[in-house]
Amino acid sequence: MRILGIDPGLRTTGFGVIETEGAKLHYVASGTIKTDAVDIGQLPARLKIIFDGVREVTSRYQPTCAAMEIVFVNVNPQSTLLLGQARGAALTALVSTDLEVSEYTALQMKKAIVGHGQARKEQVQEMVMRLLKLPGLPGKDAADALGLAICHAHAGASFAAMQKGTTLSRRAHAQYKRGRTY
Amino acid sequence: MRILGIDPGLRTTGFGVIETEGAKLHYVASGTIKTDAVDIGQLPARLKIIFDGVREVTSRYQPTCAAMEIVFVNVNPQSTLLLGQARGAALTALVSTDLEVSEYTALQMKKAIVGHGQARKEQVQEMVMRLLKLPGLPGKDAADALGLAICHAHAGASFAAMQKGTTLSRRAHAQYKRGRTY
Repeated sequence: MRILGIDPGLRTTGFGVIETEGAKLHYVASGTIKTDAVDIGQLPARLKIIFDGVREVTSRYQPTCAAMEIVFVNVNPQSTLLLGQARGAALTALVSTDLEVSEYTALQMKKAIVGHGQARKEQVQEMVMRLLKLPGLPGKDAADALGLAICHAHAGASFAAMQKGTTLSRRAHAQYKRGRTY
Repeated sequence: MRILGIDPGLRTTGFGVIETEGAKLHYVASGTIKTDAVDIGQLPARLKIIFDGVREVTSRYQPTCAAMEIVFVNVNPQSTLLLGQARGAALTALVSTDLEVSEYTALQMKKAIVGHGQARKEQVQEMVMRLLKLPGLPGKDAADALGLAICHAHAGASFAAMQKGTTLSRRAHAQYKRGRTY
């Protein structure tokens, strides 16, 4: 399975591609799509850069599925509106090529990568570097995107394990998740 | 000139196509793109319906330019975020086909159609029907979209008139716009 992670933003959209081979994870590519070549007021032109950029990534790396961060409302409502439109452009680029998109919050991603939701950006970079055996720290936006892809790989793996199990083990698994075992 | 107006929304996106012939305006088509066939929580699928719908409209009616409403922040920040993503999907559909998009607020559109910014939806419907000599009232979302297209036709006409004028008349025009004439 080849997973594309996307961390959307109006200025910078991070992307990261990984490949899974059983429980093993391999790094394929990562980077950022930047819109600052265009004047900040030119929203249509900026959304086009995001859309074209994400489409270029999907056509070059041919992922089998995608994982995208769920963004949250900002203190500034105007920023929320702009971030929403940027995320809309990136998400549209994915679904326009019929890619299935799973959505995760930053909290879910940090829990999957670092082990707790309060992790700092640097801790995500550090853990992504270790998990993918990278020679150096990835950039912050690329690290978040790779983190989302890894988070999706883990979610897929636990789902597959559950499907392999018997009815009883699935039931036990469900109980375990609720904090009780028997 | 063939103008496509778009009134974006997560549930319903209105569209309207008009043609200009000098100062004359002709109705071409209008309608709505609805996303309620898909479960409300399925944001990627809903954005895909909006993107595909707008692309279908542009490919069928071949507009030369587009006008889109600038949306505003909602009382509910979560709604703002959803509306932003819907607008991002619609705007992306337009720019992905290299259409030039002009943006107008609802206030600008109402001023252009009804004459003042406090106009009610029904007044916009009524005036759009008269201006385009329609046999009946257009729906509210379609009327807003047609209103945006007419608003853009007017803006284009005054811009063309300005370009035809001499330096002096252009200067006078600019002064006039600021509320002073000489």
